[in-house]
Amino acid sequence: MGRRDLTPESIVRLEADAVVVLDQRRLPDEEVELRCASAAEVADAIRALAIRGAPAIGVAAAYGLALAAQQGKDLDAAYDMLASSRPTAVNLRWALDEVRDDPTPARARGLHEVEVERCRSMGQNAVALLAERAAQAAPLHVLTHCNTGALATGGYGSALGAIRTAWEAGLVGHVWVGETRPLLQGARLTAWELEALGIPFSVIVDGAAGSLMAAGDVDAVLTGADRIATNGDVANKVGTYGLAVAAARHEIPFHVVAPTSTLDPSASTGGHIPIEERDPAEISTRFPAHNPAFDVTPADLVSTIVTEEGVHRAPYESSLPSPVRVVS
Amino acid sequence: MGRRDLTPESIVRLEADAVVVLDQRRLPDEEVELRCASAAEVADAIRALAIRGAPAIGVAAAYGLALAAQQGKDLDAAYDMLASSRPTAVNLRWALDEVRDDPTPARARGLHEVEVERCRSMGQNAVALLAERAAQAAPLHVLTHCNTGALATGGYGSALGAIRTAWEAGLVGHVWVGETRPLLQGARLTAWELEALGIPFSVIVDGAAGSLMAAGDVDAVLTGADRIATNGDVANKVGTYGLAVAAARHEIPFHVVAPTSTLDPSASTGGHIPIEERDPAEISTRFPAHNPAFDVTPADLVSTIVTEEGVHRAPYESSLPSPVRVVS
Repeated sequence: MGRRDLTPESIVRLEADAVVVLDQRRLPDEEVELRCASAAEVADAIRALAIRGAPAIGVAAAYGLALAAQQGKDLDAAYDMLASSRPTAVNLRWALDEVRDDPTPARARGLHEVEVERCRSMGQNAVALLAERAAQAAPLHVLTHCNTGALATGGYGSALGAIRTAWEAGLVGHVWVGETRPLLQGARLTAWELEALGIPFSVIVDGAAGSLMAAGDVDAVLTGADRIATNGDVANKVGTYGLAVAAARHEIPFHVVAPTSTLDPSASTGGHIPIEERDPAEISTRFPAHNPAFDVTPADLVSTIVTEEGVHRAPYESSLPSPVRVVS
Repeated sequence: MGRRDLTPESIVRLEADAVVVLDQRRLPDEEVELRCASAAEVADAIRALAIRGAPAIGVAAAYGLALAAQQGKDLDAAYDMLASSRPTAVNLRWALDEVRDDPTPARARGLHEVEVERCRSMGQNAVALLAERAAQAAPLHVLTHCNTGALATGGYGSALGAIRTAWEAGLVGHVWVGETRPLLQGARLTAWELEALGIPFSVIVDGAAGSLMAAGDVDAVLTGADRIATNGDVANKVGTYGLAVAAARHEIPFHVVAPTSTLDPSASTGGHIPIEERDPAEISTRFPAHNPAFDVTPADLVSTIVTEEGVHRAPYESSLPSPVRVVS
């Protein structure tokens, strides 16, 4: 698999006897695949971040359920195992629910195709939005956090897909990539994707975003989301909230780009979103550490939420769509 | 040298033929000393961060000039070499100017003693300040960034010294330590000092500070400074500005603790402070990176500046003292 060929199937796919994922823990140093021979192994791969990104783990879980069905396993047990592999991204449960009543390979692959197609739609919607901003300050310098590209979504990308579409449209001049501690999804994965796409970028430490904004070097911030409450509060990778606070101070638009599968109709505010606490050893093996993997950005700091359905603005209670079913 | 014995002499000292520093690059894994046999080697040690922290590099530079004098070297050349070893911390030039006309070992050691004594005074001043806050929310959960302890100042510490004094006074319950990418001065050095002192703490990724503040888990933020303009703008380790912006949103006091040697009477605003750009390889050896080592926090976000002279508040133009000479 060549790195210029980051197809949906190269990121996650269902084979006859396994779900195969590109092992994101080993990027950018090595491009190796991980074969998950059971739903339990898919859950392990999600938990260990071999595959990560809210939409991508939804797709992987759907494939995991289809694999369990192929293998004649207890589907309720497989569902529970996959649904509980990570707590914050709601896409996981959404994708499982989408395929649960008919967990065939065709259905799971259809869901994967729909999620990638949604990314392309989000990209188009974001371009229209960024074109307004670019009219004032083209080409735009945009800042992003974590990885929201093809790797995170099973193909193309949400926020990074939007940046890609906007760059192809001539609107983007440079991408600032927050390295995203502790696991460096920005410095490892987003940088790797941007290099492959030929989009100019610089990695920065997460703490450097504020001074770039103060210097006028950031025209827009784009991030993905792991779960969005009905009031527009957004759970995303830890550090997102601080970016949104700084962006607000500098009146820099802060856009969240995520498919409707990231919307949680059962969460009225961010306070209802469970925040995953990960192993402190990801930060320090020597000293005590506290390692929340996500934070919540309140809706008042979110300029727009871009889904495949359109560009949504406050008040989000009325502007956000419901999660859109793959098979309605 | 035992780790419980972090004396000023163990951090930096002048011997007959060398300036000896505890090599901070190798902490916390190894406690090894680096012998700098010339002013040029002292400048190298400062540049390479074997010794770092604005007050500590001032002390090291003063010792470097005294060493050059002992060795009969060209003092103007030594001065220039040491003064230019790092651009942002003004303490470097201040310390060199303090000893330039009489660069004897006794004079340099006197300067070192004064800087450590100033730390203890800052600690006392900060305790009075934090006692007000602790009356509302004791014991305080305080957040700090980078390393501002004994290692950074040649003994005791500025912001971390204040936290130590406040903890000894029963005012502090927990310290959140921002790991401080890219070089992890928080996760390596501050954690090591706090462990030795027995003060409870947790290391966090720099991006996690905002959500801790939003959750009400931060009662005060204390940082050091590398240079303070006359209007109260503060240059400090990159990431400080974002902490100050988030603290302001949550109405959390943001205190800067630094000796008067950090004040720059020639800089009327932060815009006049040079910001060091370091090797991008500190962030990524694989992808392009942008690596400013410091940022500027504007005075409007700084609740107080604590020096050895007292607690100063806006308007800083009138409240800040002048740098206080060691030998007046």
